[in-house]
Amino acid sequence: MSKGVTPKSEDYARWYTDVITKAEMADYGPVKGTMVIRPYGFSVWDSIKDAFDSRFKETGHVNAYFPLFIPKSFLSKEADHVEGFAKECAVVTHSRLKSAADGGVVVDPESKLEEEVIVRPTSETVIWSMYKKWINSYRDLPLLINQWANVVRWEMRTRLFLRTSEFLWQEGHTAHASEKEAVDETLKILDIYKEVAESVLAIPVLTGLKSEAERFAGAVDTYCIEAMMGDKRALQAGTSHYLGQNFAKAFDVKFQNENNREELVYATSWGVSTRLVGALIMVHGDDKGLRLPPQVAPNQVVIIPIIKTEEDLKTIEDYVIPFTTALKNSGIRFQIDSRLKMSPGFKFNEWEMKGVPIRVEVGPRDMENKTLFCARRDTGEKQPIALDDAPKKIETMLEEIQSNMFNQALQFREKNTFNINDYDAFKTQIASGGFIRCGWDGDPASEAQIKNDTKATIRCILADGKTKNLTCVYSGKPAKHEVIYAKAY
Amino acid sequence: MSKGVTPKSEDYARWYTDVITKAEMADYGPVKGTMVIRPYGFSVWDSIKDAFDSRFKETGHVNAYFPLFIPKSFLSKEADHVEGFAKECAVVTHSRLKSAADGGVVVDPESKLEEEVIVRPTSETVIWSMYKKWINSYRDLPLLINQWANVVRWEMRTRLFLRTSEFLWQEGHTAHASEKEAVDETLKILDIYKEVAESVLAIPVLTGLKSEAERFAGAVDTYCIEAMMGDKRALQAGTSHYLGQNFAKAFDVKFQNENNREELVYATSWGVSTRLVGALIMVHGDDKGLRLPPQVAPNQVVIIPIIKTEEDLKTIEDYVIPFTTALKNSGIRFQIDSRLKMSPGFKFNEWEMKGVPIRVEVGPRDMENKTLFCARRDTGEKQPIALDDAPKKIETMLEEIQSNMFNQALQFREKNTFNINDYDAFKTQIASGGFIRCGWDGDPASEAQIKNDTKATIRCILADGKTKNLTCVYSGKPAKHEVIYAKAY
Repeated sequence: MSKGVTPKSEDYARWYTDVITKAEMADYGPVKGTMVIRPYGFSVWDSIKDAFDSRFKETGHVNAYFPLFIPKSFLSKEADHVEGFAKECAVVTHSRLKSAADGGVVVDPESKLEEEVIVRPTSETVIWSMYKKWINSYRDLPLLINQWANVVRWEMRTRLFLRTSEFLWQEGHTAHASEKEAVDETLKILDIYKEVAESVLAIPVLTGLKSEAERFAGAVDTYCIEAMMGDKRALQAGTSHYLGQNFAKAFDVKFQNENNREELVYATSWGVSTRLVGALIMVHGDDKGLRLPPQVAPNQVVIIPIIKTEEDLKTIEDYVIPFTTALKNSGIRFQIDSRLKMSPGFKFNEWEMKGVPIRVEVGPRDMENKTLFCARRDTGEKQPIALDDAPKKIETMLEEIQSNMFNQALQFREKNTFNINDYDAFKTQIASGGFIRCGWDGDPASEAQIKNDTKATIRCILADGKTKNLTCVYSGKPAKHEVIYAKAY
Repeated sequence: MSKGVTPKSEDYARWYTDVITKAEMADYGPVKGTMVIRPYGFSVWDSIKDAFDSRFKETGHVNAYFPLFIPKSFLSKEADHVEGFAKECAVVTHSRLKSAADGGVVVDPESKLEEEVIVRPTSETVIWSMYKKWINSYRDLPLLINQWANVVRWEMRTRLFLRTSEFLWQEGHTAHASEKEAVDETLKILDIYKEVAESVLAIPVLTGLKSEAERFAGAVDTYCIEAMMGDKRALQAGTSHYLGQNFAKAFDVKFQNENNREELVYATSWGVSTRLVGALIMVHGDDKGLRLPPQVAPNQVVIIPIIKTEEDLKTIEDYVIPFTTALKNSGIRFQIDSRLKMSPGFKFNEWEMKGVPIRVEVGPRDMENKTLFCARRDTGEKQPIALDDAPKKIETMLEEIQSNMFNQALQFREKNTFNINDYDAFKTQIASGGFIRCGWDGDPASEAQIKNDTKATIRCILADGKTKNLTCVYSGKPAKHEVIYAKAY
C-alpha cells in the first residue's frame, strides 16, 4: 500500500489530497493559495465545461470576456457586495519592477498607480458598468451573457479545487425588463445546474433558497445546488442569484420600456466552478483512488495488453482492431496502455487510481477464446466478454456505470439524511455527520445559535419543504421553512 | 453615412476602431488599457481557438492550467526574461480592502504581502518551477502542455485587440530530451500557426526567424508568422520559440537519460493571442465594415425576410424551411433576422458591418419564382438562386469566399512587397508603406540604424531566403540573410 492513498476512514482530508496528487489531477502552485490543474484534471474540467456551455447556448446565452481588473471604487458601489468581497481582494498597486542591487528585482515605487485596481473576485461590477453603455431600450433586453474566466479571492487555507486563491468558473450575468423574467432565468439556470450535476457528474443535489446569512453579497435571493460529500459534509456546488435591481441602481442602468418610460433593469448572476471537480472526487472516490462517471472521464475505457515483448504487443493490437475501431465510431474515449516496462499489476493500480470506468485486459488466453476480460471500476465486477459483442456491451456498461454511480451517491445521501425535531438529537447527529432535515422558524438568531453550537449551517431552504405541523428544531416555534442543516465545506 | 465607419483611406486607425465598435466586437473596459470582448467578437475568437486547439490535440498536446500569480523572485531567474517583462508587470502588493471614512474603500495597509506577486505576463517561470517537480526521467518526456489563459502586460496606449493590458492567448510549453526534438517541435507548431492563419483566417503569412533584437526574452530562437495589414504595416501574428536549456537551467530541471545520466531538459514555448482578431479585421475589413472568412464567421449566412407584417414573416419562414433544414444538416451557421421594426436596408447595413459572408434576401417575388436572392460580402456580387439548389450553392459559395478572401489578401501583400537593394529607395518606399524584401549583413548595428532612420524593423529572416549575390540594403556588404523589413504594429 506504499503507493496507495491514505484510507478515507483514517483521514478524509489526507485521502482527498492523496487521490488528487496520485491521480495527477492537480498540484500546489508556488504562490501560497494557488493551484495548478494538471492535464488529467483539466480534461475532466473541460468535459464539465462543455456540458454546461452547450446547455447555456441552447437556452440563448452567449459568451463574452470582461477584464480581470476592476477599479477599486467599483467594489463599493453596491453596499452588500463590498462587505462580501473587500476582505479577500488581491490589489494591484504598481505596474513595474526594476533591478535590485542583489541581482533580483524590486517593485519600482515610481510605477505606483493613481487608483489601485483589484483582481476580480466576481464580475458583477465591471459587467454592470458596461451594461450601462449597452442597454438603452427594451429592445436590448434580455441580455444573456456568460463568461468562462479565472477569479481571485485571497485565501491562505488552500484545499485543492475547494478553496484556492484563484479558481476557474463560469459566471452568467443577465439583464431583463421585468422581475418575473429575471426570476424565471434564475430558476432556469438552477434547473440546468441540477441536471448537469445529476446526469453528467452523477452527483445528486438538493435545490433551494439560501437563508439571508448564506446569501450572495448583493443578491435578493440566492438559489443553490447542494451535494453531500463522502464524509457526509455538504458542498455548495453552484449558485444562481436573483439580484433584483441592486446592480442596476448601483450603476444606474435604465431602459426605455415599451411605454417609453424609464425603468431600472432586473438582473441575475450565476456560477459554477472548478469546485465541482472537488465534488466529483469526494462523492465518488474510494480507497483505490478516483472513480469517474463515464460522461466526464478523460478515458472511458483503458485497454491493457498482457504482454512481455514488443511482438506480443503487436499481436494484441491487431486482435483488438475491430474492437477499437467500433469504440472510435461510437465516440467512446479509450486508450491502449502499451508501455512495455510496466507490469500489468502496476497499470491496473494506476488506472484504478485515475478512476477509469472500464478496464479491458487482453492476454493470450483471451485471444484463444475470442474474448476480452472486462473490469468495472464502480463495482469491481470482472467478466470475460465475447470480442464480437464487446463494443455494444461496453456501451451499455458505460450507461450502467453512469446511473449506478448516481444511485450509489443518492443512497449514501438518503442513508445519511435525518429528519430530526429535537435539538439534543440534532446536536448528537451533527457531531457524527450527515444532513438534517428539520423545521426553521425563519429567525436568523436561531440559525446563528445553531451555527455557534454545532458549526452546522442551513444549506438550503427546501423548495418542496412541508411546514404543516413542523416546528423549529431550535426554538420549538412553528416552522416557517423546512431546511437542510449540515456542516459544510 | 452617419452610421457608417470612417473610410480607411481617411484615417486607418479610426476606421479600425469604428469597425470594432459598430460591429460590436469589443469595447474599452473601465480600467485604462483593458478591453471587453463582446459576444460577437468572442464568438470569432472561439472559432479561432477551436481551430488551434483541435490541431494541438491531434499532435499530442494536452491542456492544463497554471496560476495567474507568480512570485516576484521567479521573474529574475532567467536574465533575459526579466529584462523583457519587468517594465510592464502588474504587481499585487495587498490582499484586502477596508472601509474608508467617505463610504468608499481603501487598501488595508495591514494586508501587505511579505513577497509581492506579479500577474503573469507569460508563464514560462511558473511552469518550469512545476516541471522541476514533474520531470525526473526520460520516460516523463516529452511533456507537451498548452494552456488557454489571460496574461497581463501593462499598457497605457490601448489599441483594441492589438495592444491591451490584458489579453487572451494560448501558450504552449514543452519539455524534451534532446535539442533536435525541441527544435522539431518549434517548427511543427510554426507550421500549425501558418496553416490555421492561411486556411482558417484566410490571412497569408510569411514565416521565418526573428533577429536578435526582436527575439523573445529568454529564447535561443524565435520563429514567427508575419502578416501584412490593410495599411501595409506588418503584424506579428504568432511566435514559436526554441528556448534551449535556458529555463531548465534557471529552474534546475534535469532528467535521467536512457544511459542513467543527468541532463538538462530542452524547451519550447509558443503562443497566439486575441491579436489575431485584430489581424482579421485589418486584413479583410473594408469601408462597409468587417468581412469575415466563413470559417470563423459566427453567422455564415443571414436570411433577411422582406416583410411588413408578422403574417409576411410566417409565410417566408415556411417558404425557407427546406433551405434552413438543409443548412442545419450541413452544419452551416445561419440566422434569420426576423426583427419586425427594422427595415431591410437597416438590416443589410448591419450585417454588412458585421461581415456576414452571405446575405440571403427573401421577398414575395422570390417566393413566386421559387428563388432566393443572394449577396456575397467579399465581392458584392448579387444573384438569384433556385430554392432547390440553394443549400448546395451556398456551400460551394462559402468555400469560394474563403479562398477568394485569402487570394485577395495574398495579392494585396504581393503588390505591396518590394525587392529593394538601395537604401534611398528603401527609405522612400518605407515612407509610403509595404514590405521590403532585401539583404541584411547580419549586423545588429545596421538593423538598429534602419530602425532609427525609418521606424522599420526586420519582421522575419526568410526561411527560404536567397543570399547569393545579395548585398545588405544598408551597408552594401554581402548579405547574410534575406529579410523582410516593414513598419509594424
